[in-house]
Amino acid sequence: MDPELLIKIAREYGTPVYVYDEGLIRRNYREFYLAFKSRYRDVKVFYAYKANSNLAICHILKEEGAKADVVSGGELKVALKVGLNPRDIIFTNNSKTRQELELAVDSGVVINVDSRDELYRIHEIAEERDKPASVSFRVNPSIDPRTHPKIATGLRESKFGIHLEGDLALNTYRVAMELDNIEVLGVHTHIGSQITCSGVFRDAAEKIMEFVYELHEKLGLRLKFVDLGGGLGINYRGDEKTITPDELAGEIITVMDKWNEKLGYGPELWLEPGRYLVGNAGVLLCEVQGVKETPCRKFINVDAGFTTLARPVLYDAYHRVGVLTKIGEPVAESYDIAGNICESGDILARDRRLPRVNVGDIIAV
Amino acid sequence: MDPELLIKIAREYGTPVYVYDEGLIRRNYREFYLAFKSRYRDVKVFYAYKANSNLAICHILKEEGAKADVVSGGELKVALKVGLNPRDIIFTNNSKTRQELELAVDSGVVINVDSRDELYRIHEIAEERDKPASVSFRVNPSIDPRTHPKIATGLRESKFGIHLEGDLALNTYRVAMELDNIEVLGVHTHIGSQITCSGVFRDAAEKIMEFVYELHEKLGLRLKFVDLGGGLGINYRGDEKTITPDELAGEIITVMDKWNEKLGYGPELWLEPGRYLVGNAGVLLCEVQGVKETPCRKFINVDAGFTTLARPVLYDAYHRVGVLTKIGEPVAESYDIAGNICESGDILARDRRLPRVNVGDIIAV
Repeated sequence: MDPELLIKIAREYGTPVYVYDEGLIRRNYREFYLAFKSRYRDVKVFYAYKANSNLAICHILKEEGAKADVVSGGELKVALKVGLNPRDIIFTNNSKTRQELELAVDSGVVINVDSRDELYRIHEIAEERDKPASVSFRVNPSIDPRTHPKIATGLRESKFGIHLEGDLALNTYRVAMELDNIEVLGVHTHIGSQITCSGVFRDAAEKIMEFVYELHEKLGLRLKFVDLGGGLGINYRGDEKTITPDELAGEIITVMDKWNEKLGYGPELWLEPGRYLVGNAGVLLCEVQGVKETPCRKFINVDAGFTTLARPVLYDAYHRVGVLTKIGEPVAESYDIAGNICESGDILARDRRLPRVNVGDIIAV
Repeated sequence: MDPELLIKIAREYGTPVYVYDEGLIRRNYREFYLAFKSRYRDVKVFYAYKANSNLAICHILKEEGAKADVVSGGELKVALKVGLNPRDIIFTNNSKTRQELELAVDSGVVINVDSRDELYRIHEIAEERDKPASVSFRVNPSIDPRTHPKIATGLRESKFGIHLEGDLALNTYRVAMELDNIEVLGVHTHIGSQITCSGVFRDAAEKIMEFVYELHEKLGLRLKFVDLGGGLGINYRGDEKTITPDELAGEIITVMDKWNEKLGYGPELWLEPGRYLVGNAGVLLCEVQGVKETPCRKFINVDAGFTTLARPVLYDAYHRVGVLTKIGEPVAESYDIAGNICESGDILARDRRLPRVNVGDIIAV
């Protein structure tokens, strides 16, 4: 994005402010979608609203053809407001409330079930209304995605999903198929976020497709879709090795094709990218409120903190930092960018080589 | 708090809900205040609003006589709304915005300055208005409070305060005394939170009082107050060794008395307890949305998560957990309490031995 324009936005709208590049979001979506669509007939891309559920961004992605992956009643309402067909909304979460499930059943979205208890609750609601509920089940494939532990979701110890292990998932499908007003449409897995190694996606696809085959052989169940979730990592540092959608699609579709041949049918492939579509298109602008030299460190105090950007404090995440008002000036100092929350852990970035910074400068994170 | 009453509140007002015990807050305040007041003539207790800036709680503490320690423009507005005298509000933060400083100068609160840059900014605002600004300086005493690194604020590497080291703090006072419209009232330090060892408070008091003496000897400055911050730990597990206000006061006042004799005057002692006043008086109620058994763990899914209670994910904090609807029943299982945020790190408590839990049970954290 043009630094002059960003500075103008910061001055006009005030800081802290997030700015997104619409064109880049659209290009990211098309790149992702086409990587899969060019290799597989039935592909649906669900934008993971948790990456950014701003209404404008959700509208842009809807225009591009994205469906919605939502994780709360609030996000579900956003997706409905955006005007998506309820069948193009999938609702995932380990702990949905009764009110959220009622909204989901009433609106007819696909509910991605996380436990037996949840299945029974959905059944109860569907029975009360005599209205079929569309469900899939999130399964836990016990895969280590080699990412930060707090965003690894498919580990055996994770709170998410129903384990394939011990036939727990298989038996849950068996129970579901016998319940009135429960329409079993698919299977879902999501192994984690910010994954930069394609082997783990291939392993997950293998496990899930083997399970789809098992459902077909043992229960005679033919699924409408297989949802492999999201988790494609992006390049925060600028020099990290990541996977392209093209590489990811190549790996996954090879697995799908192999199993579909055995299966005798080809379920729709659903995917849930979030960060990949919007992460590199956004920048946080903040203003320098003060610079402080201490005997051991130099701090730049800005007007944003972990309430604005939680990733550094939560995951020790690295975000690139630049001084928009000092572009072209030589690097002069090593600074910590300190947030404005009254906690020592609120440091947005550490040891960054930057030009000399003053009060009023605009920093882009 | 009476479990029956809490269950009634949960059912009537919905979950998640925080419930506070007014009587206990008042007792905590009185215990804290009297511990110091019985030993020292001029004591002011500033409630650290960041512990809970709910208007009702702030009103209760104002009734008891508490002043306010605020860390943002928002909290400053709450303190003014509660009706406190601006001279009884101290505004601390490493990165205050120009608007926040303008509000602080206009309303006449004590601004606890964190850097040279901030001092110049306050001076600029005070000059524009030709209105004196009352300030103190937060100094960094380079003390390790032996607590969680994210809440240790007086470390040498911390973003907070102006270092005593290298006469940085002394020289800042020297500069401030020469500025028109800057009224230097005090000195402040706060070494961290959830501290359970009294020695570190004594060390901090020693360092600060030595500095107060230095200010008097070298600059002829006589301070109105010395603010030793907060940080008194509370007992989360039920069996932790903590310090009582009485023990703390004993340690600190001994140091104060010794230095006051050398000084030839006795500044007011300001203190900023937060968690100590309200932490043990609050409980978070949530409702069980599902129980899930996996091959390695049993999860209780509740309708609260790290957006409701951030301490476990941020500091690996331990909070006691009880099942209000199963009081008296025998302990049967070991559970993880899983929050409802779509992140693996959102676990409110791990490996808790509890009675058998079902959907609809009310859990108190």
